[in-house]
Amino acid sequence: MNELLEFGRKVLKEQPFSVLLGTELTSFESGEAVLTLAVREELKQQHGFVHGGVVSYLADNALTYAGGSVLGNCVTSEFKINYVRPAIGEKLIARASVLSSGKKQAVCECKISVVSDKGEVMVAVALGTIVKVE
Amino acid sequence: MNELLEFGRKVLKEQPFSVLLGTELTSFESGEAVLTLAVREELKQQHGFVHGGVVSYLADNALTYAGGSVLGNCVTSEFKINYVRPAIGEKLIARASVLSSGKKQAVCECKISVVSDKGEVMVAVALGTIVKVE
Amino acid sequence: MNELLEFGRKVLKEQPFSVLLGTELTSFESGEAVLTLAVREELKQQHGFVHGGVVSYLADNALTYAGGSVLGNCVTSEFKINYVRPAIGEKLIARASVLSSGKKQAVCECKISVVSDKGEVMVAVALGTIVKVE
Amino acid sequence: MNELLEFGRKVLKEQPFSVLLGTELTSFESGEAVLTLAVREELKQQHGFVHGGVVSYLADNALTYAGGSVLGNCVTSEFKINYVRPAIGEKLIARASVLSSGKKQAVCECKISVVSDKGEVMVAVALGTIVKVE
Repeated sequence: MNELLEFGRKVLKEQPFSVLLGTELTSFESGEAVLTLAVREELKQQHGFVHGGVVSYLADNALTYAGGSVLGNCVTSEFKINYVRPAIGEKLIARASVLSSGKKQAVCECKISVVSDKGEVMVAVALGTIVKVE
Repeated sequence: MNELLEFGRKVLKEQPFSVLLGTELTSFESGEAVLTLAVREELKQQHGFVHGGVVSYLADNALTYAGGSVLGNCVTSEFKINYVRPAIGEKLIARASVLSSGKKQAVCECKISVVSDKGEVMVAVALGTIVKVE
Repeated sequence: MNELLEFGRKVLKEQPFSVLLGTELTSFESGEAVLTLAVREELKQQHGFVHGGVVSYLADNALTYAGGSVLGNCVTSEFKINYVRPAIGEKLIARASVLSSGKKQAVCECKISVVSDKGEVMVAVALGTIVKVE
Repeated sequence: MNELLEFGRKVLKEQPFSVLLGTELTSFESGEAVLTLAVREELKQQHGFVHGGVVSYLADNALTYAGGSVLGNCVTSEFKINYVRPAIGEKLIARASVLSSGKKQAVCECKISVVSDKGEVMVAVALGTIVKVE
């Protein structure tokens, strides 16, 4: 396991909300981060799909990780998310990458998909600004 | 208690994720919805602030409620959120309202604030599209 | 005429693109800016409505003015716009205001309406981040 | 020249605003569209860069073309744009593609770059929803 991934997993364990949900950092390299989350009953809304708020949390967190991989300590300043399909399946995967970065901020995108016995399909896409914290 | 509020609270109880977090529907009228959420350790990130994903979940849900108050059964199609301040305090309040609506969709905004012993301050603002589900 | 408005109009005249379109700065105070634009044939799309790009330009510019009223020299870092109605009429009005600001950036919103013989109706709403340029 | 490109160019000529600016449709295939725009003095702001409103117009229009390639007659419902670098150069290129589409709407992204004697660099990225018009 590379050092960045080890460090990223340590940070994730220090986020009580990510621990509550069960998020895992699967991959973490310069410019890219992948978070996964096992779907369970508690993460759903009234129609049995994963709650949109879970999907947006995962997007937000993956965007921050991607930005953090090039900026260091940082926060999400803003992001936008488009839901394209109900999230029905066993596992969410959020793949975020840096599109552009400077000294103080990075613009990152994230594609979130769900894995079920039918395979993997994209459920949302996000775009946001990550800002370095001095 | 008005009928709409009663109905809205019933729906909220059917969202396992909202129950897990402890969200409450405080007000629900035509064109407007207010959700509140008591801050607890489990909802925080590594610096002790409320996790951005909790704030975005609450914004998303409040936007959907506001849209639902004029559209009926609906989902959030997309939204954008700007975080303007770390969320430090005891309670989050998300106030959403409909800016414009038609037969099929509504554009709604949401302001999210945190309440602490220093009073109430805005921590984020969101704007999104809510779409009617047939 | 206040000094800020005078200064703002001077800057607008230095923007060749705003001169090409015919934009006017109607009001400019701390935290608020109003831009107006007379609709003419050249600003339309193929269905006879004002082109969405004209509306988004006006929103972008009004957001920057609102942010500039509290930050000084600045640029739009990002924004989102929701079109809610076709822009049919004689004049566009973009009213932008600061929702939150710090030393380095401001989050601003803008409502754009069109004026016709039927009155004034909102055609779009925007939300964005304005960043100070050192 | 393929039929879609021919049709797309015909539509572009029917947009007075696109004619005013000088936009060209360079490529138009199912799921993808490329618009280009020669930079001239009239398209700039007060610092000599291309006006952000020109960049957002081009993004908006490219997003609509990409969506239209799979939906037919359509409009941009909403989009978000992140400016990542001042646009300094001779030509803007907006490359838009469909990320996800259904019967009624498509979610599209667009990357806008500027070409100068130093090569081509990305100046903005956009993400939006395109809706079919019946």
